[in-house]
Amino acid sequence: MDDKNKDRIVRSFGKQGFLRFLGAQLLSVEEGLVEITCPFSEDKTQQNGYFHAGVTTTIADVACGYAALTTMPLDAAVLTVEFKVNFLRPASGSAIRAIGKVLKAGKKLTVCSAFVYDDTGKEVASMQATMICLTSTRI
Amino acid sequence: MDDKNKDRIVRSFGKQGFLRFLGAQLLSVEEGLVEITCPFSEDKTQQNGYFHAGVTTTIADVACGYAALTTMPLDAAVLTVEFKVNFLRPASGSAIRAIGKVLKAGKKLTVCSAFVYDDTGKEVASMQATMICLTSTRI
Amino acid sequence: MDDKNKDRIVRSFGKQGFLRFLGAQLLSVEEGLVEITCPFSEDKTQQNGYFHAGVTTTIADVACGYAALTTMPLDAAVLTVEFKVNFLRPASGSAIRAIGKVLKAGKKLTVCSAFVYDDTGKEVASMQATMICLTSTRI
Amino acid sequence: MDDKNKDRIVRSFGKQGFLRFLGAQLLSVEEGLVEITCPFSEDKTQQNGYFHAGVTTTIADVACGYAALTTMPLDAAVLTVEFKVNFLRPASGSAIRAIGKVLKAGKKLTVCSAFVYDDTGKEVASMQATMICLTSTRI
Repeated sequence: MDDKNKDRIVRSFGKQGFLRFLGAQLLSVEEGLVEITCPFSEDKTQQNGYFHAGVTTTIADVACGYAALTTMPLDAAVLTVEFKVNFLRPASGSAIRAIGKVLKAGKKLTVCSAFVYDDTGKEVASMQATMICLTSTRI
Repeated sequence: MDDKNKDRIVRSFGKQGFLRFLGAQLLSVEEGLVEITCPFSEDKTQQNGYFHAGVTTTIADVACGYAALTTMPLDAAVLTVEFKVNFLRPASGSAIRAIGKVLKAGKKLTVCSAFVYDDTGKEVASMQATMICLTSTRI
Repeated sequence: MDDKNKDRIVRSFGKQGFLRFLGAQLLSVEEGLVEITCPFSEDKTQQNGYFHAGVTTTIADVACGYAALTTMPLDAAVLTVEFKVNFLRPASGSAIRAIGKVLKAGKKLTVCSAFVYDDTGKEVASMQATMICLTSTRI
Repeated sequence: MDDKNKDRIVRSFGKQGFLRFLGAQLLSVEEGLVEITCPFSEDKTQQNGYFHAGVTTTIADVACGYAALTTMPLDAAVLTVEFKVNFLRPASGSAIRAIGKVLKAGKKLTVCSAFVYDDTGKEVASMQATMICLTSTRI
């Protein structure tokens, strides 16, 4: 994958205030495949002390979005149309990690899936998402 | 709705570190209907400065979960099985607000929907979710 | 709603071999709101004798698709991008009925929801769907 | 996989009037993995002559449901709680084929995914589904 493609993703990631807030990090960017991690902290928990579903979902969504963006023109922007997540088990441990990949890249819409893993490698969530490529035209 | 039912939801909400982090607040709790709000801040944004989809999703999920919990026995706990969200327009403004309601309360599973609104009252997201009632038995 | 808009939906419905096979019928077409019914028969059942989830889903999908199409230009075609369905209770009785409505009509994508009811008026399924408007450009 | 486990699935499949109607066939049954096929015919089409989304969805749902059932006790029944499907490309050709597999088997809930392929091996749809195990207790 060329550097320009990767760079725009690194730059876009850096603009997301919410990801900074979460301490999320971009682990790897390949064509159609993006990996993101997020460390545990008390301020990311739900009522039982596990990672909040909203945190798990956020990094899965971001992994899908950037996986899709790697397949889009350099001047394009990506937005999430919709996603669906199944929560497979409580997410605990020191960090979670999401791997998003492209299932089908289209001119306008790209379908992705993501798995989120805990720090023992167990799957904690599974996402299926639709991303839209925005150039000059709007949704 | 009796006070014990409402109290447990207020208590559970207070235990969610992530909601404190987001500054989310419980606006109202009725039988099968829960409303939650979250103020805007730079650390909740995506790359274009709008509310991050993960924030929108979080408050919709929490509104669904507690709407479901109001219909469950007092000693029960609620967990999210899965949800699906469509993002209808960018979420901007000073705050977003989610209204979660029960579509069908079951002994084990409860199906909910939520709409998230921006501060002008426009719908920014629509969720359909499945919640599970946990007592002594596990998923 | 003008007649040309309604007519194209009646014509398109008539071209769907699968709907004929199911005996599905278009009950009403309004701007952003379409109603479809499907009679019970042994060849639409799952293993317990209820309406098959696939039948319930089909009429919900078609109701969403045509509700979306009423908001699109006359030369446009509609395709289903994705949908999610929750099954609320077993669907029995002499017929099921789906009401699809537009939640948000966009230039390219339209988000719809549908409820399916049994013949006593009970909700048996709830769908949230994304439809795409196809003109000259492809997905 | 033992014969009793496989037999109950073959028997249950045979009781589904809708699958007979569609001409669907069980291609293979393994632990957590089920494959189903459905031949093309004019009465399974949507308005453009492709396989109807409802047919694609039906065989994906059935493949997920029986994949889940292989992991459940012999006296259990399986019902679909919900599913989400993304349609990746129009489904044409002489037959479609769905492969359903278990992502996470639980005591009560089992999460599955399925891909549907056309007769050239291209993916036409992707499903993520939740199944429930019914014994004496109800949903």
